Amino acid sequence: MRILEHTFEEYLKIVKSFHGYEAPGVVIGGLMVDAAVRNLANDIPYNAICETQSCLPDAIQILTPCTIGNGWLKIIYSGRYAMALYDKSNGEGVRVFLDAEKVEPWKEIKAWYLKLKSKSEQDSGEILREIKDAGDSILSIQHVCIKPHIAMKKHKGKIALCPKCREAYPSDSGDICTACQGETPYL
Amino acid sequence: MRILEHTFEEYLKIVKSFHGYEAPGVVIGGLMVDAAVRNLANDIPYNAICETQSCLPDAIQILTPCTIGNGWLKIIYSGRYAMALYDKSNGEGVRVFLDAEKVEPWKEIKAWYLKLKSKSEQDSGEILREIKDAGDSILSIQHVCIKPHIAMKKHKGKIALCPKCREAYPSDSGDICTACQGETPYL
Repeated sequence: MRILEHTFEEYLKIVKSFHGYEAPGVVIGGLMVDAAVRNLANDIPYNAICETQSCLPDAIQILTPCTIGNGWLKIIYSGRYAMALYDKSNGEGVRVFLDAEKVEPWKEIKAWYLKLKSKSEQDSGEILREIKDAGDSILSIQHVCIKPHIAMKKHKGKIALCPKCREAYPSDSGDICTACQGETPYL
Repeated sequence: MRILEHTFEEYLKIVKSFHGYEAPGVVIGGLMVDAAVRNLANDIPYNAICETQSCLPDAIQILTPCTIGNGWLKIIYSGRYAMALYDKSNGEGVRVFLDAEKVEPWKEIKAWYLKLKSKSEQDSGEILREIKDAGDSILSIQHVCIKPHIAMKKHKGKIALCPKCREAYPSDSGDICTACQGETPYL
């Protein structure tokens, strides 16, 4: 089994290096990205949507040109374990999701997916073995079209200096930056 | 000049590989992460906050163990070009921001930062030269303490099968998943 140009074992190493450990979600995410890329027309410049912030964004960032920082990957939260790659020019693309029905025969994957076991009860070696054996048989694919306002590149607009903190911020936020308006993560 | 364990030129190559191109924001972000790490106590397990989704998250993901997918990096939007690393155990940390006053002498960095020139008018080679020359002289550092509800690890809670789409989702979202409630990115 390959995950794009990587062997399964090579991919595990990259996951460990980027994500910190061989998280089942990032490993299954690799299968999902691989399936999405194979089902997109060749050589289309694409963007990505990820429906969860857990694990899956890292598989997309590892395997595709799409990252959070370059804006080609957006997290549009539904909490479902699903992602889509779509043609930048028209929003048409492929959605891949981990299919609960297809996961049914895979005891450890199912326990991880539906959180039937706590992390400490999970056997991570066994989950990885099941993922390797299951391959893309646990995934389903849909053709989708992304809503234009989501597919569209957003521009920051003009930049102003906040009169309160003296830092630059997008002037669309108001007369002072949102942090000075109170939405700050700091005490 | 070094960016953590990398030479400036090595870092540019990693940026190009991960982010797609040598974006000034990711390069300055490298200086910011380097400054933050150097100003944190040694060997503290840390998390990251990024105040913008543009470019800077990628510098954090490239240079630290913190990624969007492993949850150690959170984007708390203020639109300011700033990030913080903080001790996971008590929320105390270091915030680094691009200081508009200190950027003043650097013509190209200033034009990029305050969007005084369009992308096509910017001279990317000259911006990179200025960034290399300026180094951390354009940054300022603050000691911060992260609000506990932001520093805290969030748990997804229980997982349910959505009776409508038949996909797994966090049951906190309601009787059906948020996508089936209408918040879907797809047409």
